[in-house]
Amino acid sequence: MSDGCGAARRNIGDAIPPAPEGPGFLARRLLNITAAETARALPFEVLVPALREGFARGAHTPARHHHTIDEAANATLLLMPSWTDGEHLGVKLVNVFPANSAAGRPALSSAYVLASAATGEHLAVIDGNELTRRRTVATSALAASHLARRDSATLLIVGAGHIGGLAAAAYRSVLDLRTVLVYDRTPAHARRLVDALHAEGVDARPVTGGLAEAAAAADIITCATLATEPVIRGEWLAPGTHLDLIGSFRPSMREADDACVRRGTVYIDTPVALEESGDLTQPIAAGVLGRDDIAGTLPQLCREEVPGRRDAEQITVFKAVGSGLADLTAAAVVYRSASRRPPE
Amino acid sequence: MSDGCGAARRNIGDAIPPAPEGPGFLARRLLNITAAETARALPFEVLVPALREGFARGAHTPARHHHTIDEAANATLLLMPSWTDGEHLGVKLVNVFPANSAAGRPALSSAYVLASAATGEHLAVIDGNELTRRRTVATSALAASHLARRDSATLLIVGAGHIGGLAAAAYRSVLDLRTVLVYDRTPAHARRLVDALHAEGVDARPVTGGLAEAAAAADIITCATLATEPVIRGEWLAPGTHLDLIGSFRPSMREADDACVRRGTVYIDTPVALEESGDLTQPIAAGVLGRDDIAGTLPQLCREEVPGRRDAEQITVFKAVGSGLADLTAAAVVYRSASRRPPE
Repeated sequence: MSDGCGAARRNIGDAIPPAPEGPGFLARRLLNITAAETARALPFEVLVPALREGFARGAHTPARHHHTIDEAANATLLLMPSWTDGEHLGVKLVNVFPANSAAGRPALSSAYVLASAATGEHLAVIDGNELTRRRTVATSALAASHLARRDSATLLIVGAGHIGGLAAAAYRSVLDLRTVLVYDRTPAHARRLVDALHAEGVDARPVTGGLAEAAAAADIITCATLATEPVIRGEWLAPGTHLDLIGSFRPSMREADDACVRRGTVYIDTPVALEESGDLTQPIAAGVLGRDDIAGTLPQLCREEVPGRRDAEQITVFKAVGSGLADLTAAAVVYRSASRRPPE
Repeated sequence: MSDGCGAARRNIGDAIPPAPEGPGFLARRLLNITAAETARALPFEVLVPALREGFARGAHTPARHHHTIDEAANATLLLMPSWTDGEHLGVKLVNVFPANSAAGRPALSSAYVLASAATGEHLAVIDGNELTRRRTVATSALAASHLARRDSATLLIVGAGHIGGLAAAAYRSVLDLRTVLVYDRTPAHARRLVDALHAEGVDARPVTGGLAEAAAAADIITCATLATEPVIRGEWLAPGTHLDLIGSFRPSMREADDACVRRGTVYIDTPVALEESGDLTQPIAAGVLGRDDIAGTLPQLCREEVPGRRDAEQITVFKAVGSGLADLTAAAVVYRSASRRPPE
């Protein structure tokens, strides 16, 4: 009689290791990396070059999964996997609960789970909010290293929120900025960021006159707002300006008007931006911008497959919506940093 | 001039909390719960009643997502979300890397990320392998509490792997077993489990004669093998036997022959079992079993919508393929237990 078990030793669960106990135990503990530890592990001097290499190399990043958790409250779960062959496999889990804001709680909670793509072993869980903030502004700085004038001296930050607040540090890691101008529709918020930048030794000033004048004076403008109508007008831009658009991640959101993309040479982080950002979908729908007008993606820039800035007069525009590749690259940097430290 | 920013304070990133520092910091740390801690938090006396309540109540469990990470190595990422309204939202991340086995490493690595379904806040990351092992045998024990004879005294375990090794403890939490028989195609493995059960004070014996004879003597048979041909034959079963089939989770896998499902009254954990397990798909394809022949699901049993065992002569069969609901329920138990302990 054959008992049909196939190979002698195979029973269900044998693929699963039993609960570890004893001396080897601590070594197998998943690293739990908090927001503050994530921030410390990601100085922009390290993160921007890592992203340059990551975008040049590429990763597998399927479309994210979307589950509605609570229809009435518009609460959503997003699952965003990404991996590099034989190296790292990561999943960002993002819970978007907009109703939290009314209760004074953050609307987003995000966790990043990193594993080995060679063995599947889980390595770390990383604060996804901090990871996202830092890779977002680092991606902008990386693009600016290809697109802004090398002699750019004045940065204008539009929107002094948690993302805008990090932009100066990211840009300063790639360019010798002399002055940072800060605009926020709520002047107290601009003032708060200016004070924080002063504390870091940065020559920062709030925009007290009009935004138009500040935009015209800036070499680089970075927008990190949730605006649904254009904040920046193309007519304001001086020749040689680089315009960085972080905010719009839905077709209904928009920071730059049609004249910005008509006057500027437009680059994007990945082709998803053409579907998701109103800064591109709206001018494309209006016939102002063609898909063929896009001068390149960030991977193409990092691989030097397309040229960056052409001359000192060109206006350049960079629109990013964020990528799983940037999350994965940043998570790998955090893990390498954390695994060099002694265990908790 | 309107700057189009909409509500005054809204900038991108404002939904994201900044990196926490200072006194409130530890309180917001995601709990990191290891395999050993997961095992300690899930005694079957706690887990089985929690699953009874969980299956009665139900959860939202969409179809799992499947990504091929390495085609040649058949390496796969599975993402399995599940949530209960206003309570918990969990995702099991499973990396299946079959090639690991040849290198002596576990083929599965699994992490469970638990969040609040009311606020989206991430609460804990839990060892997914240990969670899965324990909820698997606890699900079997829960089914047996409805389907096995109350005076069942002899349990036969077929397959002494990591799952089979936990079956006795789970069953003993719901029934007064007197004897545990252990069969494994590799006699040394049966012997090892018998020794471990002796150490726990259980009257256990390896099956040294034929499996047919042991099956006929058992009140409950639980199979936890990776067999692809039937291990248990229906002709062996004595009246009143309960047959629990854990192993087959693919149409190509099978532990029980056609006679088992023809002689027995068949229950399943969830309807997914009808699609995924060869123990059901093969007899259905052969016309031996109809979908209408399924007497009920575990949620129906727990809600008392369908009757369990009818009489002392009936042969009952339970086939489970595992459910996100059971993972979520077990994860919530682990979290409640861990959050009562002081932080690490």
